[in-house]
Amino acid sequence: MRDFSGDTALLSLNTATVQAQWTLEQCIEGCARHGIGGIAPWRDKLAECGAKRAARLIRDAGLRVTGLCRGGMFPAATPAERRAALDDNRKAVDDAAAIGAECLILVVGGLPEGSKDIAGARMQVRDGIAALLDHARAAAMPLAIEPLHPMYAADRACVNTLKQANDLCDALGDGVGVAVDVYHVWWDPDLEAEVARAGAADRILGFHVSDWLVPTADLLLDRGMMGDGVIDIPKIRGWVEDAGYDGASEVEIFSKDNWWRREPDDVLATCIERHRTVV
Amino acid sequence: MRDFSGDTALLSLNTATVQAQWTLEQCIEGCARHGIGGIAPWRDKLAECGAKRAARLIRDAGLRVTGLCRGGMFPAATPAERRAALDDNRKAVDDAAAIGAECLILVVGGLPEGSKDIAGARMQVRDGIAALLDHARAAAMPLAIEPLHPMYAADRACVNTLKQANDLCDALGDGVGVAVDVYHVWWDPDLEAEVARAGAADRILGFHVSDWLVPTADLLLDRGMMGDGVIDIPKIRGWVEDAGYDGASEVEIFSKDNWWRREPDDVLATCIERHRTVV
Repeated sequence: MRDFSGDTALLSLNTATVQAQWTLEQCIEGCARHGIGGIAPWRDKLAECGAKRAARLIRDAGLRVTGLCRGGMFPAATPAERRAALDDNRKAVDDAAAIGAECLILVVGGLPEGSKDIAGARMQVRDGIAALLDHARAAAMPLAIEPLHPMYAADRACVNTLKQANDLCDALGDGVGVAVDVYHVWWDPDLEAEVARAGAADRILGFHVSDWLVPTADLLLDRGMMGDGVIDIPKIRGWVEDAGYDGASEVEIFSKDNWWRREPDDVLATCIERHRTVV
Repeated sequence: MRDFSGDTALLSLNTATVQAQWTLEQCIEGCARHGIGGIAPWRDKLAECGAKRAARLIRDAGLRVTGLCRGGMFPAATPAERRAALDDNRKAVDDAAAIGAECLILVVGGLPEGSKDIAGARMQVRDGIAALLDHARAAAMPLAIEPLHPMYAADRACVNTLKQANDLCDALGDGVGVAVDVYHVWWDPDLEAEVARAGAADRILGFHVSDWLVPTADLLLDRGMMGDGVIDIPKIRGWVEDAGYDGASEVEIFSKDNWWRREPDDVLATCIERHRTVV
């Protein structure tokens, strides 16, 4: 396993971690100031800044872009909504390409409004990614399917295990891979085997870290800083690296009542310290 | 699939549904008053009432006991704690037998204090159930492993899929089965197959219903009434019955800010109406 004890180059800041405090430009400056090697913007921050200007700022700061968050949200109640989602996903591919992102993260979407048909939603996800793939391949932009924790199955992502994501990749072919976020998959008894399977197919496009707090006060906005929860992050990183992953470790923490209330430079300093000691 | 449209005999009330309002004695009287056929007490309510007295009240009311909640909580940090957990589980088996319960529900437990070793916790669960089995078999009390939603993996149950529960049953042999609670398993892409597997081994000991609300405000205490959420309950009940289950449908709703604040007779009336129409 790679030694992170003196590293900051393999650390990447997902802008969600300080989304309440900083613009994208401030995030870029913050990464540069702290020697953090990568950044992963969310599209709302990117839109504020403008993709072209963001691309220049990121390049000038010497940062890698470990992913753009996010495309996806494929299932919809009507054909018109599905077409609109596809159009938006093509735009996301273009934005990702414009900033030189290593992949476009896909949060695939949950149940359409009023639906209880999760199997149908999963078919819509498969069809939606399939429809996006030509555009993504033409832009040479890998699509990273991120399985989300089952507690988000209804409203955010009906792909809830790495096995499902691997099965989708098998069905869809080149140009699509997976993102492994420890928060979403740490509980999965099949995780080690499915990480190995993903690695054997050379499809691990991202590795995201945070921690599961006990208790967890909010389903969405109470993620923990690495080391503050119960996830054995080094064990999972070991599996991911044994499977051939040599990319960055991206910190993505949604934390309304804790990290989003802190001085962002302190948040970044803590990310670095935890990256070196507990990831 | 059985017709519930005129039924109340196959409805069972888990006392958690009105735990804030009623004692066990009041729950028994309430079930009898509404013609509800079964009851599933929690042990704290049973202890208040006394098992012997509860057994008489339940028998006099003509109720079946679809389960006792709960045994389990096997993983522990020290051998002394593990022994204490085993002693308490033997007592739970005795209580379940005293009230004529159809099974003892096992919520198996999560990570021991300070541990990040979920694989180790899962081994402790297997060993704990194995250690309990002789006592349970002697009492002719089936143990029902209930997989809990992955959001409870850390602090309540590290058995999070029906596949895991089935694997445990395969390993442990006679005297152990599963409880299928739609709230915990509705998201699982392998659910249909694992329900069929459980049925083929004649090990489905219970079927629990409630609903997944969107949004869900609290990880533990914001379950919905059947029909108010996104779970396709009839589809899952169909799978369970196709697999040979002919037991009751047990309503278990933890709902701090809604159903626990309502007039309990209204809660029971709503359970009946939903049992007849959307389960």
